[in-house]
Amino acid sequence: MFIIGELINTSRKRVEAIVRRRDERSIQQLACAQVEAGACALDVNAGTIIEEEAETLEWLVKTVQQAVQVPLCIDTVNPDAMDRALAAHRGRAILNSIDNTPGRSERLLAIIRNYRPRVIALCFSEDQLISDSATVRLSIARELVERLVQAGLEPSGIYVDPLVRPLSIGSTFGALVLDTLMEIKEKIPDVQTVLALSNISFGLPQRRLVNQSFLPMSMMAGLDAVLLDPLDHRLMGVLKACRAILGEDEYCLEYIDATRAMAGLGY
Amino acid sequence: MFIIGELINTSRKRVEAIVRRRDERSIQQLACAQVEAGACALDVNAGTIIEEEAETLEWLVKTVQQAVQVPLCIDTVNPDAMDRALAAHRGRAILNSIDNTPGRSERLLAIIRNYRPRVIALCFSEDQLISDSATVRLSIARELVERLVQAGLEPSGIYVDPLVRPLSIGSTFGALVLDTLMEIKEKIPDVQTVLALSNISFGLPQRRLVNQSFLPMSMMAGLDAVLLDPLDHRLMGVLKACRAILGEDEYCLEYIDATRAMAGLGY
Repeated sequence: MFIIGELINTSRKRVEAIVRRRDERSIQQLACAQVEAGACALDVNAGTIIEEEAETLEWLVKTVQQAVQVPLCIDTVNPDAMDRALAAHRGRAILNSIDNTPGRSERLLAIIRNYRPRVIALCFSEDQLISDSATVRLSIARELVERLVQAGLEPSGIYVDPLVRPLSIGSTFGALVLDTLMEIKEKIPDVQTVLALSNISFGLPQRRLVNQSFLPMSMMAGLDAVLLDPLDHRLMGVLKACRAILGEDEYCLEYIDATRAMAGLGY
Repeated sequence: MFIIGELINTSRKRVEAIVRRRDERSIQQLACAQVEAGACALDVNAGTIIEEEAETLEWLVKTVQQAVQVPLCIDTVNPDAMDRALAAHRGRAILNSIDNTPGRSERLLAIIRNYRPRVIALCFSEDQLISDSATVRLSIARELVERLVQAGLEPSGIYVDPLVRPLSIGSTFGALVLDTLMEIKEKIPDVQTVLALSNISFGLPQRRLVNQSFLPMSMMAGLDAVLLDPLDHRLMGVLKACRAILGEDEYCLEYIDATRAMAGLGY
């Protein structure tokens, strides 16, 4: 499982304050902690700092890459911010995200042709209802994957995101995501799949419990990569347990290691 | 999900002591607590009291049925104990379990014809390796289901158990169970599926974490019924979260109720 740490996001108040005062050390600590906990990549998002998002995202990329070796996931809908952050990124970044809305993706495709990042491709197009059905989402995914391949990306560098919406808004949104994941794995087997785990639990009590239940189900449905909080040690324990259950952890060694770390934290 | 409470089992030291001294009140409290926590049926097992298992199981059936209305799951490999416990049971019991070992199932089939309980049918036959493959287990299940149907049972009264063995013994046992569950749901769709959840984590640290990870995966694979500890409130919370994720809990009301109960317990 390719784990993308989600914590460097200015929608979190504490992070916004750190970023606004350009506190390199605190950002780097947050980056290191996530990588130590098992993150394979780190999301960086400065979306709440609208007035200077591009400059802020560039600063974040440079600051985080001084501290850790993993690739960053450039998380923005602003093409200027994308361009500047990708230009600053060392190595191959991940772009989070592109959707299939007519007219909007042209500039993004140009950016992708230029930097050739890996890309998170959302099963979303503004001209179609996003909560429609797994079939609609799959057809959006197909079209978008085709455009990305034409732009020169290899399918294995494309992470299709079925788009997780909160259960608190629609009781069917969980099943829809799981169905879409299974459809993608079956019908577009060359691409990877990804989702932002905690979106599912927005607005519900005991959110971590829902996230911890959704992760094993998504893994069964064929999830390859996931945005999550790697400092949620119980969630990471669940991930390790799932890998052991799926036969991906011989002698359960990784799982046993993870429980040792949890024991040190009082679990 | 049909939840079978697993706690009335003399392999648990405290329960064995209670049963040996015929402490009706303590057994009835354990029965009521499980039903209040959401159990739809209760397993009763006196397997460690070998010298008088039949008599003990009969006492357990009568004692538990004085306290709760749910059906009991008569858990024994001893035909005399089965016979006596089924005779004592009010309403339709569940027999746990029958396997497909040649020669051994004849007497059990006679008992089943007599009492017509629902039956847990194990994907196991002593003349075949149990850890073989999902295909082997499926073929055992098919044969056993056919014999049970010939004995007069309706398929929906048969709970096929893929047989969970501990991950600590074999790294592939989790994937094998999940594959077998999916095969059964696809190839014998009229029967139900069941498993004893906590067997998966035997011998591992933080067993509850493994159980809580295995339940969502099993539900994705098509699990209909499960033997578990209903007093593990976090596990029950996971179960409710999974139902909400699968779209089986409109407005997440049951899930929200479950988290309220957990909050009262300090979660």
